[in-house]
Amino acid sequence: MKIGIIGASGYTGQELLRILVRHPKVEIAYATSERFAGSALDEVFPSFKGILDLQFRKLSAPNIARDVDVIFTALPHGQSMDVVAECIKKGKKVVDLSADFRLKDAALYERWYGKHSCPNLLSEAVYGLPEIYRDEITRAQLVANPGCYPTATILALAPLVEGGMIAPTGIIVDAKSGVSGAGRSPSMTNLFGEVAEGLKAYSVANHRHCPEMEQELSLRTGKGVHILFVPHLIPINRGILSTCYASANEALSTAKASEAFQRRYGTEPFIRLLPSGAFPSTREVRGSNYCDLGVMVDDGSGQVIVISAIDNLVKGASGQAVQNMNIMCGFPEAMGLEQIPLAP
Amino acid sequence: MKIGIIGASGYTGQELLRILVRHPKVEIAYATSERFAGSALDEVFPSFKGILDLQFRKLSAPNIARDVDVIFTALPHGQSMDVVAECIKKGKKVVDLSADFRLKDAALYERWYGKHSCPNLLSEAVYGLPEIYRDEITRAQLVANPGCYPTATILALAPLVEGGMIAPTGIIVDAKSGVSGAGRSPSMTNLFGEVAEGLKAYSVANHRHCPEMEQELSLRTGKGVHILFVPHLIPINRGILSTCYASANEALSTAKASEAFQRRYGTEPFIRLLPSGAFPSTREVRGSNYCDLGVMVDDGSGQVIVISAIDNLVKGASGQAVQNMNIMCGFPEAMGLEQIPLAP
Amino acid sequence: MKIGIIGASGYTGQELLRILVRHPKVEIAYATSERFAGSALDEVFPSFKGILDLQFRKLSAPNIARDVDVIFTALPHGQSMDVVAECIKKGKKVVDLSADFRLKDAALYERWYGKHSCPNLLSEAVYGLPEIYRDEITRAQLVANPGCYPTATILALAPLVEGGMIAPTGIIVDAKSGVSGAGRSPSMTNLFGEVAEGLKAYSVANHRHCPEMEQELSLRTGKGVHILFVPHLIPINRGILSTCYASANEALSTAKASEAFQRRYGTEPFIRLLPSGAFPSTREVRGSNYCDLGVMVDDGSGQVIVISAIDNLVKGASGQAVQNMNIMCGFPEAMGLEQIPLAP
Amino acid sequence: MKIGIIGASGYTGQELLRILVRHPKVEIAYATSERFAGSALDEVFPSFKGILDLQFRKLSAPNIARDVDVIFTALPHGQSMDVVAECIKKGKKVVDLSADFRLKDAALYERWYGKHSCPNLLSEAVYGLPEIYRDEITRAQLVANPGCYPTATILALAPLVEGGMIAPTGIIVDAKSGVSGAGRSPSMTNLFGEVAEGLKAYSVANHRHCPEMEQELSLRTGKGVHILFVPHLIPINRGILSTCYASANEALSTAKASEAFQRRYGTEPFIRLLPSGAFPSTREVRGSNYCDLGVMVDDGSGQVIVISAIDNLVKGASGQAVQNMNIMCGFPEAMGLEQIPLAP
Repeated sequence: MKIGIIGASGYTGQELLRILVRHPKVEIAYATSERFAGSALDEVFPSFKGILDLQFRKLSAPNIARDVDVIFTALPHGQSMDVVAECIKKGKKVVDLSADFRLKDAALYERWYGKHSCPNLLSEAVYGLPEIYRDEITRAQLVANPGCYPTATILALAPLVEGGMIAPTGIIVDAKSGVSGAGRSPSMTNLFGEVAEGLKAYSVANHRHCPEMEQELSLRTGKGVHILFVPHLIPINRGILSTCYASANEALSTAKASEAFQRRYGTEPFIRLLPSGAFPSTREVRGSNYCDLGVMVDDGSGQVIVISAIDNLVKGASGQAVQNMNIMCGFPEAMGLEQIPLAP
Repeated sequence: MKIGIIGASGYTGQELLRILVRHPKVEIAYATSERFAGSALDEVFPSFKGILDLQFRKLSAPNIARDVDVIFTALPHGQSMDVVAECIKKGKKVVDLSADFRLKDAALYERWYGKHSCPNLLSEAVYGLPEIYRDEITRAQLVANPGCYPTATILALAPLVEGGMIAPTGIIVDAKSGVSGAGRSPSMTNLFGEVAEGLKAYSVANHRHCPEMEQELSLRTGKGVHILFVPHLIPINRGILSTCYASANEALSTAKASEAFQRRYGTEPFIRLLPSGAFPSTREVRGSNYCDLGVMVDDGSGQVIVISAIDNLVKGASGQAVQNMNIMCGFPEAMGLEQIPLAP
Repeated sequence: MKIGIIGASGYTGQELLRILVRHPKVEIAYATSERFAGSALDEVFPSFKGILDLQFRKLSAPNIARDVDVIFTALPHGQSMDVVAECIKKGKKVVDLSADFRLKDAALYERWYGKHSCPNLLSEAVYGLPEIYRDEITRAQLVANPGCYPTATILALAPLVEGGMIAPTGIIVDAKSGVSGAGRSPSMTNLFGEVAEGLKAYSVANHRHCPEMEQELSLRTGKGVHILFVPHLIPINRGILSTCYASANEALSTAKASEAFQRRYGTEPFIRLLPSGAFPSTREVRGSNYCDLGVMVDDGSGQVIVISAIDNLVKGASGQAVQNMNIMCGFPEAMGLEQIPLAP
Repeated sequence: MKIGIIGASGYTGQELLRILVRHPKVEIAYATSERFAGSALDEVFPSFKGILDLQFRKLSAPNIARDVDVIFTALPHGQSMDVVAECIKKGKKVVDLSADFRLKDAALYERWYGKHSCPNLLSEAVYGLPEIYRDEITRAQLVANPGCYPTATILALAPLVEGGMIAPTGIIVDAKSGVSGAGRSPSMTNLFGEVAEGLKAYSVANHRHCPEMEQELSLRTGKGVHILFVPHLIPINRGILSTCYASANEALSTAKASEAFQRRYGTEPFIRLLPSGAFPSTREVRGSNYCDLGVMVDDGSGQVIVISAIDNLVKGASGQAVQNMNIMCGFPEAMGLEQIPLAP
């Protein structure tokens, strides 16, 4: 099967290449980059030297539609929607890694991201979290790959929300992310000298991944879920840790909460539940598609604490995109995603 | 004035030396280290070469009491209380950086730290947070220097608790600390290879700094303050960021909360209030005695978010200890603490 | 084929597990750890949760010899030789990752490491650098896996030494290593707080990997090769960069030197020669078995500069050990070693 | 005395501010930034909040010349020369931190940096290394502040070159620098994600700091000194380590070399000679104006190894600039430069 990657010279593009180049069922036929068109892949990413012989091209939607079967779009939000619409029209399967098709409500999209050029596609797009929408993804032509923070957070809270075990409001999510989440475009905010040996919050109670989490968790419970979301920037390359706090309904214990997670995720290939009292670390999922989860009910405060860890570039972006492609194409779901976490 | 430092070869000892060696009113007369007794300071800490000529000695309480006027104890908890008691008996002023005299309730101390050998001193010790106990410190013979997490957290919450602007229960503190907080004794948990490029929570809802925060905040309001405290380990050398969430009482706005902070801390030499919408970063206080604070009321959730940043080795330990010494000895409070934050 | 790993709870053990667990021809039957005997693998290394169900055992040479076909010893030098000797006696194939069988001269071994208990095995052991000893490894029962610095350095200099293109003396190797090379045993020297944001040389002109390099390069040329070796500690987890300087024989140009490398390594699966003017970075080999090489002749000084980059835990230890096992057992040489470098 | 800083929003500007704001003899009257003109200092550098109330202005040479007594120019090379010339014409003292006045030979300048607009000033400028040109600096109107690599390297080699103890050619300098040396302008090369957990050489045998070192060392000996210079980028914020190799003249021993350093630098306020066998670490000079030096003669190779460590932003730039100002203005040389190294 022939694969095209639109916007392949950023970090999620690089990570798609890393995973797909060893995938037994696909061939990477096409990779675009406006910045590096004409350059060989191994000039832009020397880590691929001797592994993949490929040249970045300029984006040309007709060519893509002609030459490839499945398309990954790894463009910034706003730049993705038009090329996605064209590929969909040509009958191609698309996994879009931007935010352009994640929100169901066009007005909500506009408030956070700007004008949408093809709102009619919003209802057609399937939100690409396999642990929730596996069946829908099987039949989808367009998958909206979730954001990194929403992946970590929705997986942490879904079992409790679905089981009515926590109050849907008053939820606090204190999240921490490595710097690769900010992308590969040079800016003052992601310079080594501005980030290393530092630690800070940003977009406090005002991050555009929040409506995405609320949408999906509300759909799980039928009630409006409200989250206070505070992300922090941490000087590591890869990793998100999402520390979630919610009011436990009465009679919830750590044991019962753990059972709910076990029931919900027991057969999931990429979710690992830690034993009681243990909490995850990003280094133990780095480079892999795992989401590690630890849960505890604190009797004193009546809060449930769930902590999730993912690699933001894998389960939080490109790994999950390949997982979605596998489901869409009828391949084994874990194919190409067998990487063991790299520690140290 | 002659100064002695007991337990000077750890990170807080090293930091006391860094600050005191340039303090115009004191002479470092005595520094002990069991591990490095007999070694020159600049063998153990080569950064002091050419700056301070000193030899580490074995601890000998009688000598200390004889040779020095003011004593800093920077020993692990449990090892500090006996030497402190002896110095107090000899009439010396003591700033104790351990946890041994921070809790007022001996039973509570025992639950978290073990048996206390001189519980009678607990009531005599003054909790060394100058922004709260400045007058008491002026008259104190024994100051219990606060823990790093409690310093960051109490300063973040005191104005709101005192003004009755938040509910005393349901408070969540999601704190993040650099690795120097774990001390300088070799252990698997603070190896570079186990920490770098990682990110995790630890002692979830079970950290011994929590009763210290609750004690002090409860004293501010007369009601029992309850905190759910979740610390995280971050791969940086120095810095604590304390992200605090509390239920705002009705009618509290960001502007009113900011005014409360301004009123409470407006003349404090080491507290810096950030403008509305801004939140602090640890890199902007590194190496200095500042505590930077940002505050916001989130209308959607009804929560107040206060974020504080300190250098855990300075305002969170040795800088604050020197600030306390200055107050106890009648020196200008900021003397020796004029270091500009080191960024990058 | 059943595999045993002796000393599996250090970083090279962990890395052997990471590679071998996905190797299609082997089963990890046995892993020992004195420190963690009785513990499950995923307690000691949570990154393996859900991937490999294994319990660390105490070392028992008879059991190993009975239960496994091929043995990796990842013990500290001095502790390896006796268990290796016993396994060899029982007819097992062994790849020893310690220094115990690398030097051919027992007296030289004793000068750097201490008494050797089975010097007779030194001549039998094959030095496990496949790019040089591939044929001998095919027939070997005991392979002495090279040190990390020697791997990077010998690969950088062998083509020039063999071709008589550089003077055999006056060679300077300025090497830089990540912290995982110092192992996983807690000590002051590898604490995060002592290493992060630092940079220093150590064992200047006095490192025990130097005789290993000199031995092997001397064997390549028949003349005594002398190296001045200065290693440096760099605050990264993984990676060695070896910057080598040697006097070019007259008429050597960058082009000719590059040709020599091309001729020597053109078909090697794990050596990547960079284009003229380019030099390698450790991040572009991280997690992979590649050795990247860049070479240049500086006309002004008459020096050849060769820079090599490896992941010290992969090509510098466990990856190379698996490469050796593949050769010894007749498996395809790159089997199980297809990992793409992980960047960022 | 009134001070102006031209180009104050980069890292060397920030560091000048950090040092000068506590200098007892000066007042910072003027700071320019084209990027941030109109912004308050503490918006651009929040670490200065509550410390210095200042607004960045656009560069206006007439105003500067009118309002200030001494000028620091911290502009990129090529942008500095014209404003310097104007200030000199107005009779002001200038310390220029760019490369524009370091080379004595205009043709050499042009080869590495481009056209020079006022070559006549090259002979007037004094090279601002106080350990060599203290007397000349006393009388200078224009000081060309040395580059960071040249500072570390010239200090490491001057005593040996001056004493004729090493061959003037065949010198190899393998240098390592933290990322702040690359400046604060956003570019792909200094992004956190491109630098962290990496390690590489750059500008191999082709760095423009090399002619500066050769010029100054040649002047020390009267012979042409030739250096092969290979810089490396290290993922730390601050610090340069310069590892220098040179052929020892016969009969040179470690003891004799150490004596030469002791004789040459024994009374220098900012040079610290380490005891025999010890070598410096950048963490032990971080934030301070020290240059730490270790020296050894290796009998086997006949090479002298000298390793120097500086903070590239202090002794390698702004600290040295203030040291030069102190000398030019008749202040005590170490005034304002008493910072203790910050470790960890």
